[in-house]
Amino acid sequence: MKYRLKVVPLRSEKFTVVLNQSDAEDLGLLPGDRVKVIVGKESFVAEADFTNLVESGEIGVCSFTAETCRLDEKCMAEVYPVSRPKSVEFIRKKLDGGKYSAVEMKSIIEDIAKNVLNDLEISAFILANEIVGMSEEEVQWMIEAMVENGERISFERGVIVNMHTIGGLPSNEFQLIAVPTVASAGLLIPKTASRAITSASGTADTMEVLADVNLSIEEIREITEKVGGVIAWGGATNIAPADDRIIRVEYQLEISPRPHAIASLLSKCLGTGSKFVSIDIPVGDGAKIETLETGRSFANSLVELGRRLGLTVTATLTEGSQPLGNSVGPGLEAKEILGILEARSAENPLVEKALSFAAILFEMTGIANDGYSYAKKIFESGKTLEKFREIIAAQGGNEKIKADEIPVGDKTFTITSQRNGIAKKINLQAVNEIARSAGAPKDKGAGVYIHKKRGDVVKAGDPLLTIYAEKEWKLDNAIEVARAEAPIVVSGMILEVYGRSR
Amino acid sequence: MKYRLKVVPLRSEKFTVVLNQSDAEDLGLLPGDRVKVIVGKESFVAEADFTNLVESGEIGVCSFTAETCRLDEKCMAEVYPVSRPKSVEFIRKKLDGGKYSAVEMKSIIEDIAKNVLNDLEISAFILANEIVGMSEEEVQWMIEAMVENGERISFERGVIVNMHTIGGLPSNEFQLIAVPTVASAGLLIPKTASRAITSASGTADTMEVLADVNLSIEEIREITEKVGGVIAWGGATNIAPADDRIIRVEYQLEISPRPHAIASLLSKCLGTGSKFVSIDIPVGDGAKIETLETGRSFANSLVELGRRLGLTVTATLTEGSQPLGNSVGPGLEAKEILGILEARSAENPLVEKALSFAAILFEMTGIANDGYSYAKKIFESGKTLEKFREIIAAQGGNEKIKADEIPVGDKTFTITSQRNGIAKKINLQAVNEIARSAGAPKDKGAGVYIHKKRGDVVKAGDPLLTIYAEKEWKLDNAIEVARAEAPIVVSGMILEVYGRSR
Repeated sequence: MKYRLKVVPLRSEKFTVVLNQSDAEDLGLLPGDRVKVIVGKESFVAEADFTNLVESGEIGVCSFTAETCRLDEKCMAEVYPVSRPKSVEFIRKKLDGGKYSAVEMKSIIEDIAKNVLNDLEISAFILANEIVGMSEEEVQWMIEAMVENGERISFERGVIVNMHTIGGLPSNEFQLIAVPTVASAGLLIPKTASRAITSASGTADTMEVLADVNLSIEEIREITEKVGGVIAWGGATNIAPADDRIIRVEYQLEISPRPHAIASLLSKCLGTGSKFVSIDIPVGDGAKIETLETGRSFANSLVELGRRLGLTVTATLTEGSQPLGNSVGPGLEAKEILGILEARSAENPLVEKALSFAAILFEMTGIANDGYSYAKKIFESGKTLEKFREIIAAQGGNEKIKADEIPVGDKTFTITSQRNGIAKKINLQAVNEIARSAGAPKDKGAGVYIHKKRGDVVKAGDPLLTIYAEKEWKLDNAIEVARAEAPIVVSGMILEVYGRSR
Repeated sequence: MKYRLKVVPLRSEKFTVVLNQSDAEDLGLLPGDRVKVIVGKESFVAEADFTNLVESGEIGVCSFTAETCRLDEKCMAEVYPVSRPKSVEFIRKKLDGGKYSAVEMKSIIEDIAKNVLNDLEISAFILANEIVGMSEEEVQWMIEAMVENGERISFERGVIVNMHTIGGLPSNEFQLIAVPTVASAGLLIPKTASRAITSASGTADTMEVLADVNLSIEEIREITEKVGGVIAWGGATNIAPADDRIIRVEYQLEISPRPHAIASLLSKCLGTGSKFVSIDIPVGDGAKIETLETGRSFANSLVELGRRLGLTVTATLTEGSQPLGNSVGPGLEAKEILGILEARSAENPLVEKALSFAAILFEMTGIANDGYSYAKKIFESGKTLEKFREIIAAQGGNEKIKADEIPVGDKTFTITSQRNGIAKKINLQAVNEIARSAGAPKDKGAGVYIHKKRGDVVKAGDPLLTIYAEKEWKLDNAIEVARAEAPIVVSGMILEVYGRSR
């Protein structure tokens, strides 16, 4: 049977075709089935969907497919049902409690990278791995396949290092200080960062306030070779594309298996050609990892898998029960970091953490025996700020910008304490939600400024938290969220009293 | 923010709205997120998708949503992000190895029935139950919730019985003989049947050759009360709609957890108000259940769950390694069954099975001590055929039709044996695929006629299998499939020889 091609306005990043319901029945197709489409000498396999967007005798292709395969409307296409890819069977094996072979894992990851597997099939992969678990060998094959099915940076010379955080903690942008410190010492650090998914700002979002982060793999290599470091958005590259697709489905399922988190981190490190990697694991109430025990086992897996893949990994458990800085949201965090760099004082939790992570890389690569002193000297001398400006300039930003000049939202609202006492707890989830409701990360100037940290003495009327927004309606939303939750808990000295008569 | 409503041509049976990418980002939405839409005094929760089908400032609703909520284009709608339904958390609990409470299961099934959960969330439910497993109590709650969230038939008087097969075996339409036999004896049998999903013909597809099967629940009740029995398509009713949705996702995942198969069967029985149920479990190579051991445990679960739900269930393991009749495909099977009824001879595997199943119901309800003799008498007297004609007439069919008059495809091709020998194996999967390629079940006249069964003596040149199709191109497809597979294996007496020098 031949069908007339029609381009239809469907959003799709994979090969999808739509057929009229009656043609689909004629071909014996059900939703989720795949067809082989032959147009002239070209052919591709696509998932078939059914709709009345097209009439009987027509086949609709989304513009992505039309462009990728260079198809013209009015061409005639032959359509045949084809069976599911083999990789679906391999996933089935894991569901039955089995183990993937190296070849099977490679085939699954390749099919994910090439958009051959659909979201339901990817969800089966995620859930099987979450429930049944994966051996270290399986994770190793997964990472190798992720890297193979993507672009890779290779440097001709230099010691290539990297740094990552597993994230989840608001106001944790220490890497914007650590990366230029590391680069100042002559190491090459091609850092890729993520944008916020459920948080108020990812490192890429914050960096974007100061410079362009949508860099190609070629630009990342060039800038790193030129100034020693880069802070780019990983999503703009094609490093480990399978990982990006898996993460998108994980978000919808609200599930992220531990082995996948490890695969995600290490595949990005391998893809950027890094050899020495320092990884931050914040541990604390409300963070992604809540207990030291879980953190330790996570850290050990990272180190062991790094070893299997030829990477030297240091994983560090860090304080994760409250924000490191005071600012949450892209503009506010960029302002805070730049202010800290301008002040050159190491007496700040963000600086302390940044220098500790730079120190680890200095010691791992043998650049210094006392890495922290070495890093501190660089920072206090102003070299970190100077290198950061070079990186900003290389990424097309305004290298002369001062902290004061970074704009933040002009619609503000401050929440004050109702009582005297001590700030007892900062609810990380609530802080995130308030900042997101205010517009972060899309509205760069939106976010939250935290006036009191845990242990701070608070008087009635003292400001606890200021919300910044660019739009009035978003400020209103954020205030509503702040009222429903208790972002900062203030309690008096007396917590509970027993045995006192009323 | 207010958005202008626009109806868009999207196929969707659930509440879905589409927003422009930039508006979605403004609202902080990601694919799969849900929004509350307020239009005047009406409001509904929908899943948000992003597309350029609508411009910024517009919100697209599919026609299903527009009709259900009686929305007009050009109305203004308010849109707010809302969190995921609670039932997603309960599914998460099972993924972590936990157990559902009765309330949690009820909430999950209700959300599936009402289309609140999306396909990815339903896939998490299916996979968690498949891998972690379910207790009998959990399955009981699942079935109860499925029935509560659907329509139910209630009869004022009479003994209500039912019959089902777990399916998977081609040419197994014994129920078209058993149901009128049972109804002849004065029992009420409101049978709902399914259409083929992966097979060449479901009982509903075959019955549709003779009568209308798209009956409402009210019609099923009326016809059953009038003539004693009915054979209707379950999908046209709204009995246990959650089951229909779960099955649709299971098809795409190629996974059907055992507890779900049980829930599917028993919820349909409860929904039709049945008290005594006889269930067929074909066991054999290539059938859904391949070993007696698995069949026994399945049968025990069915009986025990029936007991919990107030149903008296008999589950029977039957020969499932080859087709019962010779015909595969709706028209061919209807023709074969009607011919058997006209011939009135009990010397036929399909009749033998049908009478055995009728006998079980006669003995369960106390209608006869020797159920088989009783059933045989009914069949041989011609009462079964007479009742079948009454049922056909009540369902709007031509009660006078004769087997000879049922049309089958006029494009045919016969595969003959290349050698002398014995028919050793019938490949059920291959037979199904050939019949489907030929056009079954959509083309009623398409299918396959099997000339030789297992153990039959075959001479070179003897016909093994005839393919029937309505369209030439489908016949060609079917021939191609038949050539690639070996639907009927013929082997000589000598299978393998060892130790003979060449």
